[in-house]
Amino acid sequence: MSSILPKAVRDLAQELSRLPGIGPKTAQRLSLHLLRMPANAVQHFAKTIETLHGNVRTCRECFSLAEKELCIICGNTQRDRSVICVVEGPLDVEAIERTDSYRGLYHVLGGVLSPMEGINADQLTLGELFNRLKGTEAKELIIALGHTMESDATVRYIMAGLKELDVHVTRLARGLPTGGDIEFADATTLSAAFEGRRKV
Amino acid sequence: MSSILPKAVRDLAQELSRLPGIGPKTAQRLSLHLLRMPANAVQHFAKTIETLHGNVRTCRECFSLAEKELCIICGNTQRDRSVICVVEGPLDVEAIERTDSYRGLYHVLGGVLSPMEGINADQLTLGELFNRLKGTEAKELIIALGHTMESDATVRYIMAGLKELDVHVTRLARGLPTGGDIEFADATTLSAAFEGRRKV
Repeated sequence: MSSILPKAVRDLAQELSRLPGIGPKTAQRLSLHLLRMPANAVQHFAKTIETLHGNVRTCRECFSLAEKELCIICGNTQRDRSVICVVEGPLDVEAIERTDSYRGLYHVLGGVLSPMEGINADQLTLGELFNRLKGTEAKELIIALGHTMESDATVRYIMAGLKELDVHVTRLARGLPTGGDIEFADATTLSAAFEGRRKV
Repeated sequence: MSSILPKAVRDLAQELSRLPGIGPKTAQRLSLHLLRMPANAVQHFAKTIETLHGNVRTCRECFSLAEKELCIICGNTQRDRSVICVVEGPLDVEAIERTDSYRGLYHVLGGVLSPMEGINADQLTLGELFNRLKGTEAKELIIALGHTMESDATVRYIMAGLKELDVHVTRLARGLPTGGDIEFADATTLSAAFEGRRKV
């Protein structure tokens, strides 16, 4: 049997269910929620989506999200230009900025190398990173990628590309997360925490 | 510190986080997902939302969702007009239709009575239900509401309103769900299943 819902509702549910983490049931519920919302609020929501692409661009320097040619960080003359932090995406920049402890610049890769998902170096901003480092005052490159096989491969690729450049490369520490219990830590994290132990 | 994300992304994330079940983190991720989608797909998505309200109306008879004056069920002359099934919302109609075992009509209440949430009889289609039953050939009213305090109160309200009408009222059976293990059933469900036990 076919759905009794009007086509407009089914169409919207189908569009919503294409978004990550939204299944068909949630998509239906969200569609009905939008239907119950005031029409002008829904119009406003539609407008926000419609104008999204036109109002966002990629930073010329670091490839993070920007409103102008340079993002808010690259355009800030107060930032420390001697350090560049390599991250996967803009939400990583957001997370690091929230710590309020890093004052350098960023470089957004747009992902990590993943032959399984067909993501190779050309689809990331790796070439742009090497070019950027050649004509820069950056002395340290902090790699802030997670600890996965894909990230590790990406780090190796970066190290190979930097061979001839005089840049100090570091990677974020591995260890126990704050509030993390030893008994719940996985073996890899735990052995990394042992290896990276520091004098108290 | 403030967000480094462009205003358009933050605005969209804020709109998305107002939807049920979407927290601020998910909203950010969805916004970035939309940003990575092809611009024309996003335009189409926006259009689907924009035209939603204009393409959906409420059925004059049963208050379910409709494309015309009557919904697809009320407009179907093949349906059994002697039974009306009372449900909370259109997704309940959808769920019951999926069983392919009910051929009668529906009445969509638009919710259940809930003084806690400020939902009283006027906000539901209860008066419309009573009026509808007065001038109808319906002989049975099947109440397909869940088993909650609010639903029970709504059933009592319906029973009081029907006192002078010659309508047979039934309510969906309570019991163990298919595939439900006895050991995991809550006490209320289990005692209801005992009470409603049937000869094998």
